[in-house]
Amino acid sequence: MQKYVYDFTEGDRTMSDLLGGKGANLAEMTRLGLPVPPGFTITTEACKAYMAAGTEPAGMAEQVAVHLAATESRVGRKFGDPTDPLLVSVRSGAKFSMPGMMETVLNIGLNDETIKGLAAATGSERFAWDSYRRLIQMFGKTVLGLEAHLFEDVLDGQKAKSGAKSDVDLDVDDLKAVVDGYKAVVLEHSGIEFPQDVREQMNRAIMAVFDSWNTDRAKLYRRQERISEDLGTAVNICTMVFGNRGDSSGTGVAFTRDPASGNPGEYGDWLANAQGEDVVAGIRNTLKLSDMSDYMPTVHDELIAVMRKLEAHYRDLCDIEFTVEDGKLWMLQTRVGKRTPAAAFRIAVQLVEEGVITLDEALNRVTGKQLVNLMFPRFAEGHGAPLLGKGISASPGAAVGICAFSSARAVEFAATGKKVILVRRETNPDDLAGMMASVGILTSRGGKTSHAAVVARGMGKTAVCGADELLVEGDRFTTASGQVVGEGDVIGIDGTTGEVFLGDVAVTDSAVTQYLDGQLSDAQIAADPLVHAVDVIIRHADSVRRMGVRANADTDEDAARARRMGAAGIGLARTEHMFLGSRRELVERLVLAQDQASIQHVYDALLPLQIGDFTGILREMDGLPVVIRLLDPPLHEFLPNHTDLSVRVALAEARGEVDSKDVELLKAVERMHESNPMLGLRGVRLGIMFPGLFGLQVRAIAEAMAIRLLEGGHPHPEVMVPLVATVAELEPVRNEALAIIAEVEAKHGVTLEIPIGTMIELPRAALTAHRIARAAEFFSFGTNDLTQTTWGFSRDDVEASFVGEYLDRGIFGTSPFESIDPYGVGELVKIAIEKGRSVRPDISLGVCGEHGGDPTSIHFFEEAGLDYVSCSPFRVPVARLEAGRATLASHGTRHSDTR
Amino acid sequence: MQKYVYDFTEGDRTMSDLLGGKGANLAEMTRLGLPVPPGFTITTEACKAYMAAGTEPAGMAEQVAVHLAATESRVGRKFGDPTDPLLVSVRSGAKFSMPGMMETVLNIGLNDETIKGLAAATGSERFAWDSYRRLIQMFGKTVLGLEAHLFEDVLDGQKAKSGAKSDVDLDVDDLKAVVDGYKAVVLEHSGIEFPQDVREQMNRAIMAVFDSWNTDRAKLYRRQERISEDLGTAVNICTMVFGNRGDSSGTGVAFTRDPASGNPGEYGDWLANAQGEDVVAGIRNTLKLSDMSDYMPTVHDELIAVMRKLEAHYRDLCDIEFTVEDGKLWMLQTRVGKRTPAAAFRIAVQLVEEGVITLDEALNRVTGKQLVNLMFPRFAEGHGAPLLGKGISASPGAAVGICAFSSARAVEFAATGKKVILVRRETNPDDLAGMMASVGILTSRGGKTSHAAVVARGMGKTAVCGADELLVEGDRFTTASGQVVGEGDVIGIDGTTGEVFLGDVAVTDSAVTQYLDGQLSDAQIAADPLVHAVDVIIRHADSVRRMGVRANADTDEDAARARRMGAAGIGLARTEHMFLGSRRELVERLVLAQDQASIQHVYDALLPLQIGDFTGILREMDGLPVVIRLLDPPLHEFLPNHTDLSVRVALAEARGEVDSKDVELLKAVERMHESNPMLGLRGVRLGIMFPGLFGLQVRAIAEAMAIRLLEGGHPHPEVMVPLVATVAELEPVRNEALAIIAEVEAKHGVTLEIPIGTMIELPRAALTAHRIARAAEFFSFGTNDLTQTTWGFSRDDVEASFVGEYLDRGIFGTSPFESIDPYGVGELVKIAIEKGRSVRPDISLGVCGEHGGDPTSIHFFEEAGLDYVSCSPFRVPVARLEAGRATLASHGTRHSDTR
Repeated sequence: MQKYVYDFTEGDRTMSDLLGGKGANLAEMTRLGLPVPPGFTITTEACKAYMAAGTEPAGMAEQVAVHLAATESRVGRKFGDPTDPLLVSVRSGAKFSMPGMMETVLNIGLNDETIKGLAAATGSERFAWDSYRRLIQMFGKTVLGLEAHLFEDVLDGQKAKSGAKSDVDLDVDDLKAVVDGYKAVVLEHSGIEFPQDVREQMNRAIMAVFDSWNTDRAKLYRRQERISEDLGTAVNICTMVFGNRGDSSGTGVAFTRDPASGNPGEYGDWLANAQGEDVVAGIRNTLKLSDMSDYMPTVHDELIAVMRKLEAHYRDLCDIEFTVEDGKLWMLQTRVGKRTPAAAFRIAVQLVEEGVITLDEALNRVTGKQLVNLMFPRFAEGHGAPLLGKGISASPGAAVGICAFSSARAVEFAATGKKVILVRRETNPDDLAGMMASVGILTSRGGKTSHAAVVARGMGKTAVCGADELLVEGDRFTTASGQVVGEGDVIGIDGTTGEVFLGDVAVTDSAVTQYLDGQLSDAQIAADPLVHAVDVIIRHADSVRRMGVRANADTDEDAARARRMGAAGIGLARTEHMFLGSRRELVERLVLAQDQASIQHVYDALLPLQIGDFTGILREMDGLPVVIRLLDPPLHEFLPNHTDLSVRVALAEARGEVDSKDVELLKAVERMHESNPMLGLRGVRLGIMFPGLFGLQVRAIAEAMAIRLLEGGHPHPEVMVPLVATVAELEPVRNEALAIIAEVEAKHGVTLEIPIGTMIELPRAALTAHRIARAAEFFSFGTNDLTQTTWGFSRDDVEASFVGEYLDRGIFGTSPFESIDPYGVGELVKIAIEKGRSVRPDISLGVCGEHGGDPTSIHFFEEAGLDYVSCSPFRVPVARLEAGRATLASHGTRHSDTR
Repeated sequence: MQKYVYDFTEGDRTMSDLLGGKGANLAEMTRLGLPVPPGFTITTEACKAYMAAGTEPAGMAEQVAVHLAATESRVGRKFGDPTDPLLVSVRSGAKFSMPGMMETVLNIGLNDETIKGLAAATGSERFAWDSYRRLIQMFGKTVLGLEAHLFEDVLDGQKAKSGAKSDVDLDVDDLKAVVDGYKAVVLEHSGIEFPQDVREQMNRAIMAVFDSWNTDRAKLYRRQERISEDLGTAVNICTMVFGNRGDSSGTGVAFTRDPASGNPGEYGDWLANAQGEDVVAGIRNTLKLSDMSDYMPTVHDELIAVMRKLEAHYRDLCDIEFTVEDGKLWMLQTRVGKRTPAAAFRIAVQLVEEGVITLDEALNRVTGKQLVNLMFPRFAEGHGAPLLGKGISASPGAAVGICAFSSARAVEFAATGKKVILVRRETNPDDLAGMMASVGILTSRGGKTSHAAVVARGMGKTAVCGADELLVEGDRFTTASGQVVGEGDVIGIDGTTGEVFLGDVAVTDSAVTQYLDGQLSDAQIAADPLVHAVDVIIRHADSVRRMGVRANADTDEDAARARRMGAAGIGLARTEHMFLGSRRELVERLVLAQDQASIQHVYDALLPLQIGDFTGILREMDGLPVVIRLLDPPLHEFLPNHTDLSVRVALAEARGEVDSKDVELLKAVERMHESNPMLGLRGVRLGIMFPGLFGLQVRAIAEAMAIRLLEGGHPHPEVMVPLVATVAELEPVRNEALAIIAEVEAKHGVTLEIPIGTMIELPRAALTAHRIARAAEFFSFGTNDLTQTTWGFSRDDVEASFVGEYLDRGIFGTSPFESIDPYGVGELVKIAIEKGRSVRPDISLGVCGEHGGDPTSIHFFEEAGLDYVSCSPFRVPVARLEAGRATLASHGTRHSDTR
């Protein structure tokens, strides 16, 4: 006979697969000799058997009876005993806590008979009837699925009838009437009488917990969180203890350290003469845990001792629930406590310094996501700016700028050097230019998965979305109070809280950012406990990580910042921005050129500019590798928009004014128009179809290297060819590059070692990596494009149309643009690594897509065996941290490691 | 010591890797005892060693000397002997014959001394000097790389000086002067004297053959034909025999059957008293081989006997070169002969009927490409229409229609039911609609790889390109003779010959097409030898092939034609055309609908139309499977073009006339605009984002099946979901479909077995096929889209921009849209097959991309193990043939099989 029921005395905390998180920890506390009310746990196996068969498994009822009897004998009361009944709680307890599942039914065991015994045993008839009405209410709601308002209506009706202001003003007769009313609700809306059989009460509660595993909300949550459908939930049945039996009773929740700040010392809230739900509901103001020593000093001391024991045992911050019944302390729950990002860093380092955990363990207890949070700029404390409204915190940070109500205006303002907040009812892909030009985005519609939110997070821009009290119309918005804010007015948005302020709110870099940017002295680091903690952990991450961390940086300013942030080189220097601004006109000339001489003129004009670009970056990254990607986007991206230009020309013609340059340009734009430019003439194809273009760039790189060498520097440029699908494309580009490098070597009398490699950003490149590796000294995975082609969707288009809906429906757990898709894109990465190394074992392998800065993806890349990740400068510290964590995860944390 | 030289007596025809094709066949003929002039072959290994080291391998010269001595003793003359010199030819001979390589130098062994011996031995001084000047000319051109005109100038000068009309009018002194002139040319332009050392002549010729392996033209040819760079070429050194030594001498080329018509009986051309180059140059009119019996009956009979022996030995059509020297027959070359498509079919079946080869072998000797050729429509013989000009035969067939000079006009004309020829200077992707609307395309610019040519071949439309005598301007073109052809005038274009005719030239289906379309009686089939041959072979292909052949057909007319062409069902019925025409307006209403009721109205209107669509197709394909693909293209494809509409609205606004419907439509178009629609909201994404749309189609399919069942039919529809990237997309669509099918079953009281499957057309679908197969009863590979995403390019865009250039440069051997790319796309197909079968061993696997009708790709699919291919109805016979050939290729031809 399979064992489906475990007494709290039989399990331990390692058994969360079988007993759920709550049950395992109750067993652990029992094992430690802490005062846990007797009880038992029905296993997840029972739940799985129930789900498979649709009925409870054979033998489970008998096992429950045996363990109930054991609990009865331990407590000295009997379940259903009309003279002094044992009451129990029934709680769900899956391995991972999950919203959408049934949680708790208290006071099971009360009926029209046992209530008399409870009243007699406790000496309080009111207490007994209040307990009974709570049971019926909870049972009705969670077991029978009745709507909450049905019970609230009865209670409110009784209060009105009795003139009671609050629940506590109801007397015994009122509560009896409420119980009658509740019973009538149950009968009317569920078709059954409230069960008087106490075992039926318990059984129905157990089955309700099982069933709640499969509610739509629970299933959706599991899909989104990638929790297996097969785990099932356990059920905990625990003797009731009451914190509401007078002034020597009470209840509370506490943490072994402050989970908000990370300050040391126990921290919590409690209430005398109350039940848990009273603490949560906030009906009465709770007291601080430290105050408890004034009310019940012995129990307080016992509780503190228990908490210290738990923290020492769990070697981490613990979060507990306790009840004091008639001066007796009972522990109802414990778990490793949730905490803020700041607390996570501080507590981890405190525990290291207290000798409790190792540095490896400390590193494992913080995340890159938490570090990102600590790096957001914030509004200065007490800034006093007036609040205009509040929306959803869509993308964190704090941003201040002037309002622009269209993408075009945002771009215009930004071009004049102004900081802009783009304000829109909602955004769509046409707003991308405006979003890029802005420091923050505010919308009045849409949630965390709206276009604005998803794109802003992708860009790392602050965003507040769905601020629906703000009415956006034309070039203004109106607040709930009627205040009008127009174009050019200054506002501040807080992407962490969702608040919108009027005026130039002061924004500051966080201390952690200042530290990571190298602005703090050792003394300043030591003086700030949070910065100290970040310092200890990130230095440890650097010491353990296997992968290198480089930055994606296109300018010397970005390169300098990346270096301060700890980047060991540049993994991706894009060159397209070098063809924008005043140089755009050169691209127009290139496209319109009719003969080789005109083309050469353009190249001649570009060469010194490109040499300057590359020399600057190589100077900032002296001594470190700089991977420069040759021009990638289609040339028509540098030309005017087709529709805009068509309209302009048509209107001019209608007026009889024809601008011949516009007409010529329109012809060129139409000639070069592509229905799917992402899949068109770009990357290496451009290099092949416009002879000399890549050569120009390679020459500029070689010249810049020569200049730096002659200046006494240590330049390490690498040439990266984008969008290669076949080695037959790479070979001619490589051969041309080698010839040009040799020319420049001869010209300056220097040796130029410039590795030539390629992006792996097309499925075919990954699948034929063993062929491509013959002509490539390095691979850099472009996981943005690889995701687009592997899934067959364009990021801009799908984020505008269906990503939000896919996330909501659980088709995506995470957007594949946020974290690498391990089964599709990741599989191609693994294939390419294996095939690439098979012909060139020492090939350098990195990633320069945005996944390079995403924690989940970094762990994937560690397992896949990449040599380095490259990400935006701001993400470099996150990548350093996560690369360290990933190394530990792949090798197992070294528990023997001490500081 | 490696053996680098083989006497003709040492090899055989199986040794073409080592001896090249020509050498192996010379050895084979020698082995058969046929009269081959003595000689020897230097191996491809020697060539490879030469290329690796840059110098001839050690020992080769000695081996050449040994074999030369053996040849001398066999012939009884000595190389370089001034009294009676042995002369030799040096010819290249790679495994595959290759344009761009050096071919032949004759008469090696002549110098200022040996010429006297030759004159004495042959008794003709003129013959000797003519031979000498030919040697210097060929040596100068092919060994020293001098330009041909240098020698022609000397010869022409001498003819002018002597008043000679042709070469034969030059006397001995003239020829001596020519020799002097040639020697001067050699010295002046190569810097060396023409070598008098005969071994130097031979050595230089050998090295020149080796070097010619690596000319740019040869390399490009190998890249394009995917011939390995490593093969190298052999060199054949053969005793000279002379067909120009009087009336008992002669030379000719012949075939064992007529290679043009396939008619039985030997067939060839010859000339008395001539050398091979005279036959080729066409200076004198050649005689028929049969006439030879009048001139030299014994030799003729001997030759016929040799040819019969060769055909019996090679068991195939042989192509020979022979020379008769003083009444003695010499065989200079043989190989399996090239032939026309018609001859290929006829000869193969003749050989079967003569008991020479098996049906399997016959099937192996014809190709789908040849069958395609036999199926092209053609202009009726003797049509007499005036020829306007001639271009490149870009895409075969014959088409007649009225001229349209813009894509828009072509579409307009076609909409009124007219047949249109689109005439353009050149085409670009904006012309696609016009190309689709036309029956043929004529351009005045561009070659076989121009946009027009590539796209036309892809569409199977007749095209003539680069007809540069036709001046296309505005809405007319002018011929070389000044004739003007304007819009609406009728022309005919022959894509097989490149000819352009004026007027309504009569076009007929070929007899083979009539046969394949089921229009011929058994008697008619038997009466036409070509049709008979096609019938024998295609029936044999059907009997041996493992894969099924289905058709891509969207209408009942197409379905009926496909069935006549031999399709065993429909592999792809697209449904997008069912939303065009008058139904387009319903899609506009769907897109503009603001509420569920309006959407439902559209669905209600579409349902009976869709039921009608599907009932018709199921009726035509009664008893056979019909795979119906749910709607695939983005909905905005059914809306007006963004730029056109923007211009229309802007112009209307400028005139103060605002069409509110246009404005509303423009907003919708802008809202739905996608920058890369191929990667946007389409396929299954559409089904998920527009709830009810796929449900409507599934309901129509189920209703149509029920109708057919109740009519007593045998309908077998299957539902195919497009563009699935993850099983999480397929599952909800599948579940909805199953529910709807159950509803329709209940409504009609019938059982509807409708398999539900998916396209595999995204890399991710292939990579996660083991997950997707859990929810799919069949896979159909959409290799068009799979090629686009695997390579990261859009067919329309790249065919307009770089495919031509990529083919020219050899980056593509074949366009991956024409034949499946085995290393990238093919690898994904194999991965998906393996993963799909791993979880569902009986999963049905097919392909419905255009590769399904491409011979090369069909062989790939056979090897990969697909169950069927599906292609356009016209391609079905080709696929039947090639699937049969592919089965034989994968299992090895069964030589024991006889008719």
